[in-house]
Amino acid sequence: MTQPFPFSAIVGQEEMKQAMILTAIDPGIGGVLVFGDRGTGKSTAVRALAALLPPIKVVAGCPVNSPSLDRCPDWAHVGQHDIVERPTPVVDLPLGVTEDRVVGALDIEKALSSGEKAFEPGLLARANRGYLYIDEVNLLEDHIVDLLLDVAQSGENVVEREGLSIRHPARFVLVGSGNPEEGELRPQLLDRFGLSVEVASPKDIDTRIEVIRRRDAYEMDYDGFMGKWRQEDAELRDRILAARAHLNTLKTSDAVLRDCAELCLALGSDGLRGELTLLKTSRAVAAFEGAEEVTRDHVRKIASSALRHRLRRDPLDEAGSTTRVTRVVEEVLA
Amino acid sequence: MTQPFPFSAIVGQEEMKQAMILTAIDPGIGGVLVFGDRGTGKSTAVRALAALLPPIKVVAGCPVNSPSLDRCPDWAHVGQHDIVERPTPVVDLPLGVTEDRVVGALDIEKALSSGEKAFEPGLLARANRGYLYIDEVNLLEDHIVDLLLDVAQSGENVVEREGLSIRHPARFVLVGSGNPEEGELRPQLLDRFGLSVEVASPKDIDTRIEVIRRRDAYEMDYDGFMGKWRQEDAELRDRILAARAHLNTLKTSDAVLRDCAELCLALGSDGLRGELTLLKTSRAVAAFEGAEEVTRDHVRKIASSALRHRLRRDPLDEAGSTTRVTRVVEEVLA
Amino acid sequence: MTQPFPFSAIVGQEEMKQAMILTAIDPGIGGVLVFGDRGTGKSTAVRALAALLPPIKVVAGCPVNSPSLDRCPDWAHVGQHDIVERPTPVVDLPLGVTEDRVVGALDIEKALSSGEKAFEPGLLARANRGYLYIDEVNLLEDHIVDLLLDVAQSGENVVEREGLSIRHPARFVLVGSGNPEEGELRPQLLDRFGLSVEVASPKDIDTRIEVIRRRDAYEMDYDGFMGKWRQEDAELRDRILAARAHLNTLKTSDAVLRDCAELCLALGSDGLRGELTLLKTSRAVAAFEGAEEVTRDHVRKIASSALRHRLRRDPLDEAGSTTRVTRVVEEVLA
Amino acid sequence: MTQPFPFSAIVGQEEMKQAMILTAIDPGIGGVLVFGDRGTGKSTAVRALAALLPPIKVVAGCPVNSPSLDRCPDWAHVGQHDIVERPTPVVDLPLGVTEDRVVGALDIEKALSSGEKAFEPGLLARANRGYLYIDEVNLLEDHIVDLLLDVAQSGENVVEREGLSIRHPARFVLVGSGNPEEGELRPQLLDRFGLSVEVASPKDIDTRIEVIRRRDAYEMDYDGFMGKWRQEDAELRDRILAARAHLNTLKTSDAVLRDCAELCLALGSDGLRGELTLLKTSRAVAAFEGAEEVTRDHVRKIASSALRHRLRRDPLDEAGSTTRVTRVVEEVLA
Amino acid sequence: MTQPFPFSAIVGQEEMKQAMILTAIDPGIGGVLVFGDRGTGKSTAVRALAALLPPIKVVAGCPVNSPSLDRCPDWAHVGQHDIVERPTPVVDLPLGVTEDRVVGALDIEKALSSGEKAFEPGLLARANRGYLYIDEVNLLEDHIVDLLLDVAQSGENVVEREGLSIRHPARFVLVGSGNPEEGELRPQLLDRFGLSVEVASPKDIDTRIEVIRRRDAYEMDYDGFMGKWRQEDAELRDRILAARAHLNTLKTSDAVLRDCAELCLALGSDGLRGELTLLKTSRAVAAFEGAEEVTRDHVRKIASSALRHRLRRDPLDEAGSTTRVTRVVEEVLA
Amino acid sequence: MTQPFPFSAIVGQEEMKQAMILTAIDPGIGGVLVFGDRGTGKSTAVRALAALLPPIKVVAGCPVNSPSLDRCPDWAHVGQHDIVERPTPVVDLPLGVTEDRVVGALDIEKALSSGEKAFEPGLLARANRGYLYIDEVNLLEDHIVDLLLDVAQSGENVVEREGLSIRHPARFVLVGSGNPEEGELRPQLLDRFGLSVEVASPKDIDTRIEVIRRRDAYEMDYDGFMGKWRQEDAELRDRILAARAHLNTLKTSDAVLRDCAELCLALGSDGLRGELTLLKTSRAVAAFEGAEEVTRDHVRKIASSALRHRLRRDPLDEAGSTTRVTRVVEEVLA
Repeated sequence: MTQPFPFSAIVGQEEMKQAMILTAIDPGIGGVLVFGDRGTGKSTAVRALAALLPPIKVVAGCPVNSPSLDRCPDWAHVGQHDIVERPTPVVDLPLGVTEDRVVGALDIEKALSSGEKAFEPGLLARANRGYLYIDEVNLLEDHIVDLLLDVAQSGENVVEREGLSIRHPARFVLVGSGNPEEGELRPQLLDRFGLSVEVASPKDIDTRIEVIRRRDAYEMDYDGFMGKWRQEDAELRDRILAARAHLNTLKTSDAVLRDCAELCLALGSDGLRGELTLLKTSRAVAAFEGAEEVTRDHVRKIASSALRHRLRRDPLDEAGSTTRVTRVVEEVLA
Repeated sequence: MTQPFPFSAIVGQEEMKQAMILTAIDPGIGGVLVFGDRGTGKSTAVRALAALLPPIKVVAGCPVNSPSLDRCPDWAHVGQHDIVERPTPVVDLPLGVTEDRVVGALDIEKALSSGEKAFEPGLLARANRGYLYIDEVNLLEDHIVDLLLDVAQSGENVVEREGLSIRHPARFVLVGSGNPEEGELRPQLLDRFGLSVEVASPKDIDTRIEVIRRRDAYEMDYDGFMGKWRQEDAELRDRILAARAHLNTLKTSDAVLRDCAELCLALGSDGLRGELTLLKTSRAVAAFEGAEEVTRDHVRKIASSALRHRLRRDPLDEAGSTTRVTRVVEEVLA
Repeated sequence: MTQPFPFSAIVGQEEMKQAMILTAIDPGIGGVLVFGDRGTGKSTAVRALAALLPPIKVVAGCPVNSPSLDRCPDWAHVGQHDIVERPTPVVDLPLGVTEDRVVGALDIEKALSSGEKAFEPGLLARANRGYLYIDEVNLLEDHIVDLLLDVAQSGENVVEREGLSIRHPARFVLVGSGNPEEGELRPQLLDRFGLSVEVASPKDIDTRIEVIRRRDAYEMDYDGFMGKWRQEDAELRDRILAARAHLNTLKTSDAVLRDCAELCLALGSDGLRGELTLLKTSRAVAAFEGAEEVTRDHVRKIASSALRHRLRRDPLDEAGSTTRVTRVVEEVLA
Repeated sequence: MTQPFPFSAIVGQEEMKQAMILTAIDPGIGGVLVFGDRGTGKSTAVRALAALLPPIKVVAGCPVNSPSLDRCPDWAHVGQHDIVERPTPVVDLPLGVTEDRVVGALDIEKALSSGEKAFEPGLLARANRGYLYIDEVNLLEDHIVDLLLDVAQSGENVVEREGLSIRHPARFVLVGSGNPEEGELRPQLLDRFGLSVEVASPKDIDTRIEVIRRRDAYEMDYDGFMGKWRQEDAELRDRILAARAHLNTLKTSDAVLRDCAELCLALGSDGLRGELTLLKTSRAVAAFEGAEEVTRDHVRKIASSALRHRLRRDPLDEAGSTTRVTRVVEEVLA
Repeated sequence: MTQPFPFSAIVGQEEMKQAMILTAIDPGIGGVLVFGDRGTGKSTAVRALAALLPPIKVVAGCPVNSPSLDRCPDWAHVGQHDIVERPTPVVDLPLGVTEDRVVGALDIEKALSSGEKAFEPGLLARANRGYLYIDEVNLLEDHIVDLLLDVAQSGENVVEREGLSIRHPARFVLVGSGNPEEGELRPQLLDRFGLSVEVASPKDIDTRIEVIRRRDAYEMDYDGFMGKWRQEDAELRDRILAARAHLNTLKTSDAVLRDCAELCLALGSDGLRGELTLLKTSRAVAAFEGAEEVTRDHVRKIASSALRHRLRRDPLDEAGSTTRVTRVVEEVLA
Repeated sequence: MTQPFPFSAIVGQEEMKQAMILTAIDPGIGGVLVFGDRGTGKSTAVRALAALLPPIKVVAGCPVNSPSLDRCPDWAHVGQHDIVERPTPVVDLPLGVTEDRVVGALDIEKALSSGEKAFEPGLLARANRGYLYIDEVNLLEDHIVDLLLDVAQSGENVVEREGLSIRHPARFVLVGSGNPEEGELRPQLLDRFGLSVEVASPKDIDTRIEVIRRRDAYEMDYDGFMGKWRQEDAELRDRILAARAHLNTLKTSDAVLRDCAELCLALGSDGLRGELTLLKTSRAVAAFEGAEEVTRDHVRKIASSALRHRLRRDPLDEAGSTTRVTRVVEEVLA
C-alpha cells in the first residue's frame, strides 16, 4: 500500500493549493471548483491534501466515520466501539452515478430476505469528515450537483424514500474539476461553490522538468522520495492545525466588511453569497498567516478565488473573469 | 440544533416578507411565487417564517400532524395519542422528485412481506399545516406543479393507485422560487399561485454590509444574535395571530368589490382568479393593520403581488408587469 | 363535507351550461370539449352539474356503481347487496396518468401473494354512470384520449392483458377542457367529441362583480348562500329528468334531416359524425324545451356546439370556426 | 347484445365494400388498406362484414377458434370438445399495443406461482379465422406492422421467447385504416398489403340524408331496421360462399397473365407482388360474378385497388396514384 | 406442411443464386448481403436453398443441431441420443430483436423456481449448421449486426453474463437483405460480409409472366409443380456436394494471388478482407465448375460480388460500385 | 483448438507491433489506441501478442488469475490451490456492454435463493494479468471508457454497490481500436491512453500478396504454417522477457528529461501526462534494445506514438498530428 504523492512536492499550482489549504482550515467556506487543463494534477492534489492531514479517530465499523459511539447513526447497529485511526477519507464520485449510490438507499436484498428495512449508506456517508472529489463536475446531472451542494452546506444527509427516514452527518469539502470548454454549470450552481481556481500546465521548461523528475522519482524510488518530503508535509500540517485553532479569535473590522460589500457591488455579483464567502476566506487566510485581525490585504489576496465564478456575463467586457475581478480589486481596494 | 435565522432580522425584501405574512394570516390566499436573483435569502425567509409561528400541537406519530386522534388517517394506525408540540413544518421538494414521493405510495416491502397493502405517506403528508418550499419551481415537471397546486387548493391529498384509495388532509402554503431567466411556468400554472413577489440583491452599500454583518454574527455569535432578535419576532407573531382572529369580522363594501373587478378588467387578466385573490389578500392586509373594513388603500397596497403574474403578454407594451400593474392601479384607483 | 358550488349560481357561460345539460339528457350525444381561458369555472361547472343531478342508486361495494347485483361484474365478488344512494360520480383524469390506472389492471400484489389473478378496476370503472373530467385534454397522450373516446362511445371497458379478460360497463360523459393556445388535438380525435363550447371571462364589469360576490359568499357564508340557490337547482333538475323521459317520443321530420345534411355539406365537415350529432343534440334541445317535434330552430340553436370542432382548416377563410358555422347556418337555414 | 349495422345497409363506399367481399372470398389476397376521411364508417364496415359471414364452428375453449380438437394447440390444454358456433371474430388492435399483447407471451403469474411455463395467447390467436382491424395503421410502429403482415401471409404465429417455442394458426384478413395526411407507411410495408381503397364522405345531399336516416333508424328503431335488411345480407352471404366454392375451378388464360404483367411493368411497380395480387383478385372478382374464366374486364375492374399503393413516387407526374393507374389501364388494356 | 418454392424454379436473379450456392459450398466465404427492390424473392431464395440442401443428421433434442452426442453442449442435458434427420435450418431474425433472444440468456423462471442456473439458447443456437436470414439488415441495431458477424466468423457463440459462461457452436451463413434507400450499414460492417449481390425486378415482360405463372402454379397446383422441378433441384444439390468435396484439392497459383491483390489495390478497398474473400470465392467457383485449379476467369466472374461493398465512396466518380468494379476488372485483368 | 495467427508472421504494421511489445515490457506505459482502416489486423495482433507471451501460472478456479492463493480475493472462496498454466488472457469488450458486466455485480440469483450476497466478477476480473481489447472504442459510452482507464491505471477494480464492497486486482493493458472517421474520443480520454498508433492497409502489391499468402496458408495448411513461425515467436518472447528484467537498471540522464519536456512544450500538449509517458516508453525502447541508458534516440523513436493523440487542434496548422510531431521532433531534438 503506497501513500499518495506528497502535497508539498506538487510543483507550482499555487492558487489550487492555497484554496485547498483554506478549506482545510475552515470547511464552512464551501466547495472548490478547479477549472483547467487535463493532466495538471487536480486529483493528485486532493489525495495529497487528505493524506497530509492528521488521521481522524473513528469508531470501528461506523459507516459515517464518527469519532464516538453516540454519534454513529442508530441504523448502523454498531455494536463494538473500538476507536481506530483512519486517513481522512477521499471519495470519488464517478460520472453516471445514481442518486441512490450517492445518498444511500434501501438495502433491497435484506428487505426481501429478512423483511426488515435496512439502510445501505451511500458515498455521502463515506465522505463524512473528508473530501468528495468529482472529476468533470460539469458533466454531472444538475440535480446531483444540487443535492451535493445542499448536503455539503447543511452537513447532514437526509434520506426520505420508500418508508425510510434516515439522517446522518455528512460534512465534507466538495472538490469539483471542470473543463470550461465542455459544457458549463448553471450560474445557480456555480454560485454555491465557495472558491474557484484556475490551473494550467506550466509553460516554463525547468518547472516541467522538475514535475517529471519528481513523478519519476516517486515511481522509481518511492522510499527515498517520500522520506525527502515527509518533513515539509509535517510542517504544513502543523500550520493548518494552528490556523484552525486561531480562527475564532480573529477580529474583523467594519472596514473589512465594507471592502467585501463594495467589491461585490462593483462586480455586480448576484446575491450575497459572494460577500459572505469573501469574508470567511479572508479570515482563513489571516489565520493561516498567523495575523491578529483580518485586513484589506487578506481580502485582496483571495478575492479572485472567491468571486471569479459569480460574475454575470458582461457582453461589453471581453476580459476573462479573473481579469475583471483583478481590475475591480485594484480600483476598489486601491 | 440551531434555530433558523430570525424573520425580523432579514434586511429589506419587504414585498417577500409581506406576502409570507399574509399567507400566514389566510392560507386560502394560495401559494407564493418568488422571482429573482440567486442568493437573496428566499429559502432563509420561508424557514424563518415557519420558525416564527407558534408550534403546532400534533398527535405523536400521526403522519399528517393532526391536532387530534380522530383527524389522523385510519391507515396510519396511530395507537397512542399523546399530544406534543412541533415546529410548523417546512418541507423541501427536491428537483427530480417523483410523483410517488410527493403524494405517497404503496409500501412495496410491506406488501411483499406481509401481503397487506400499506400506504407510505409522501411529502404532502408531512407538509400538512405548514409550508412546502420548491426551489426553482420552473424546473419542476408541469404535472407535479399541477398536482401540488390542486392539493394546495383543495387541502386534501387523494391517492388512487394500485388498489389503494387513500385521502388525507394536506393544507399547506406552497412557496416556489423561480429565476425568470431559466424557463418559465405555463400561464395556466402561474394563474394558480395566489401571490408573486420580486426580490433582488440590495444595491445600497450599507444595506449589504448590514446583511453580511447579521449573517456573520448569526454564525460567529449565535446566542448573542438570537437573543437580540427574539423580542421582535415575538411581536410579529402576535400581530399575525391577532389578524387571523380578526379576519372573519371584517366588512367588505361593494365599492371594494368593484375596485377589484375594474382593476382586473383594465389589466385584461384572464379568468376570475385575479379578483378573488385580490379581495382575499386585501382583507388579510386590513386584518394585519387592524382596520375595521377593507378599503381601496388595502387593495392598492397589494395589487402588484396579486396580479403581476396573471397578465397576458402584451407585445405592444414593453413595460414589465409590475410597471403595468402600478400604472393601471394609478389610473383605475386614482 | 361541503357541497360544490350550485349549478344555477354560475354567472353567464350559457353555452357551456347548455351543453352540459344536453349531455345529461342524452349521454349518447358524446363528450364535451370546453375551449377557453383559464379560471373560467370549467371544473366548477362539471362538479356543479353532477351535484345537481339526483343521486344514483348503487349496490354497496360494487366497483362500477351498478344499480342491481346482477349487473355488478363477477370479478368484483360483491357479496352483500344493500342498495345505497351515491352522488353522480365525477372522476378527474390527472395528466400523466398511465393506461393501467385508466382501464384497470391486474392486482399484482394479490397475484403474488395468493397466486390468483384479481382485477384492480381503474378510473373508468369509477366513472360509470357519471362524468369523466380531463383538464387540458390536449396535453394528454393521444392513445389515452383515443381509448377514452372508444369506451365512452361503446359504454363498455374491455381489458385484455396478462391473461385477464375483463369487461365492465363504463357509461360516462367525457368532459375535456383545452386551451387552444397550447397544442391541439388531432382532427381525428376532435371529431369524436360530441359538442364543443367556448368560454371566456366576462368583459362586463357588473357580471364580474356578481361572480366575485357569489364566490365570496359561497366561501364566507356557505349555509346562507346554498340555501338561497337550492330551489333553482331543484327546478333545473326536474326539467332535465322530464326531458330524458320525453326524448323517445319526439318526432323528427325529413326536413330536419335535410337541414342537418345540408349544413354539414356546406361546411365541408369530414365524415358523417357531424350530421348524427347535430340530429341527436337538436332532439335533446327540443326535449328540454318540451317541444312536440324537432324543428329547424332547434338545429339552428345548437349548430355551433355540434359542428365548430369538425371544420377543416380553410386557409382562405380567416374567420374563426364559430363565425364560419354561424354564417353558414344563416345561409343554409335562412 | 345488439348486432352490428348491416353490411348491405351501408350507403355507397362501393370500392371498400368490394375489397372486403373479395378478401372474404379469397383471404390469400392479403390485407386491405383503407385510406380516407374520418367518420366514413371504416370500422363499421369491418364489423358488418364479419357479422354478415356465417358463424364459424369452433371447439369450445380453444384459444385459436379451431374447428376440431386436433387442430387446437397442445399448450391450450383444451380438455372438453364441444363444438359451438361463434361469430366470425373481429379483433381491434389498439394503438400503442405491445408486441407481447399481439403475439402472446409467457404467463408470468402462472410461471411464478406454479413454476411451469404457460403461454398466454395474444390478439393474433383470437383473430384466427377472422379479421384484425387497425385504425390508423400508419401510427403503429413499423416492426408491429411488419410482424402482422408476416403472420397474415404465413397463416401461422410463431413465438420464440423466454424458452417458449409456440406456434399456432393465425389466418386472418388484416384491415388497416389510414389517414394519408398523418404520416405514411414505408413503401416496404405498403407493398405487402393486398388491396387498398379510398373512401370519402359522400358529396351528394340525398346520399348523406340516407346515411343519417339509416343510422338514426338503427339506433332509434333497432328491431324494425334489422328486420328490413336481414334478407339482403343473407343474399350477399350466399353469393360470397358460392364464389369461394367456385374459385378453384376458374380458368386463367395466358392473355390475362400478360395483361397483369404489362400493367405492372407500365406502372413501374417494384417487385412482383403487384402481378400476383392482381391475378388473384381478378380471379375473386370473376368468382363473385359467377364467370367461367378470368377476363381482361375483371383485371380492369380491380386494377386500382390492387396497384395504387405500389407505385413509386414520380416527381414529374403530379397526378394522384388512382389517376395514374386508371390512365395506364386505359392505355395498356385498351 | 408444404415445401418451399423450388430453388431451380426461381426465374433469373442469377447473381443472388450464384452467391447462395457458393456459400453453400464454402461457408467460410462469409455472409451475403442482398441489395435491391422489395418483392424480388430474397426470402424465398434463402428458404429454397436450404430446402435444396440434403437434410442434416442431428441428435434429437440437441439445441444446436449437433451431429453426435459428444458435440451437444453440456448445459443442454441431452439424455437420449437418437440420430434424426432435419431440414437445414433457416432462422429469421426479426427486427427489434433483443440481444438476449439472439445469443440466449439465463432462464429466469428456472432460476427462480429451482434455484439453479439454466441456459436458454437463442436464435444463434437454432441457426447452427444452417442459415440466418435478416430482412432489412440496415434497420437492425449496429451492435446486433456486429455480434452476428463475430459469431458467424468464429463459428462459436460465447455467452458471458449473470454468472453464466456458456459456449456452443454456431456455424451459419448470414444472409441479409437491405434496401439502399433506407439507411445504410456502416462501412465497418459492410466489410465483414463476404459477398453482396444486387437484385431487381425483371424488366422483360416474358420473364415477368414466367415468374407469375410459376408462383400461381405453385399455389394452385402444388403437387404437379413440385414434381416438375424435383429433378432439377436434385442435380443442383449433387453439384454442390461434389464441389464441397473438391474444394481442398484445388490448386491456387501465385498469379491468382497477384490478381486478387492488384484488383483490390486498384479499387482502393480498405483492409485486406477483400483479397481473402476474393480468393476463397474464386476457389468455390472453380470447385463448382469442376476445374483443376483456380484461374483468372474465376476471379473475374466473382469480383463484383466480392468487392462491390468494400469500395470507399469516391466523390469524383459518379459511377455505381458495380460499374467501378467491372471497369477496374477489365483494366487489371485484361 | 487452434492457436492464434503468429505475431511474427504479421506483415508490416511495425508501429502497432512496436507499441504492443513495449506495453508488454512495461504495462505502466498504459493503454494503446490503434487508429486506422478496417481489416488491418488489429484484433489479430492483440491475440497474437498474448499467445506469444509465456503462459501465466494461476490458482485453478481463481476468478482473477492470481498466481498464489493468498492473492485470490476472499469473496471467491477458492478452496483448492492447484497451480495451473493458462495463456495470457485476452478479453473482448463488446459494444453496448453494461457497467455491471464490466466491473462485476451482485449475483442476484444467489442472493434471492440463498439470501447471501455473492459477487459475480465481471470482464475486468477476467482481464487481470492480460489484455482488454475494445474494437471501436470511440463508440463506447464515455463513462465506461473512463472507468476502464481508471482501473487500468490503478490496477485495482473497486466495486461499491448494493451493499457490496469488493476490490480485486485488475492489471491489464487496454487496447482500443478506433476509426477516426466515426466519432471521436473526448480529449480528456485520449490523453489517458499511453500510446497511439496508426495502421493502414499496405499500398505495396508484394506486401499485400504476402499477407494473403500467409493468411491462406494459416487456414489451408495450419500445421505447416505454425511450425514455420514457432521459432521466430520464441525469440521475440525471450527479448521481451529480457527487457522486462533490464528495465529497472537503466539510467536516465537529465538531458533526456529535458528532451521530453521541451518536446511536449513545443507541441503544446496539455498537461504533463505526455512527458511522463514519453519518458517511460523511451526507457522500454532502450530496454528492448539492450541499451545501458536512455538516449535521445530512444525518445525520438517513440515520440509519435507517445504524443500524437495529445495535441490540441490547431486551426492554423493543416498538417496531421503525426506530421506535426515529426516536424517538432526534428526541430527540438535536431
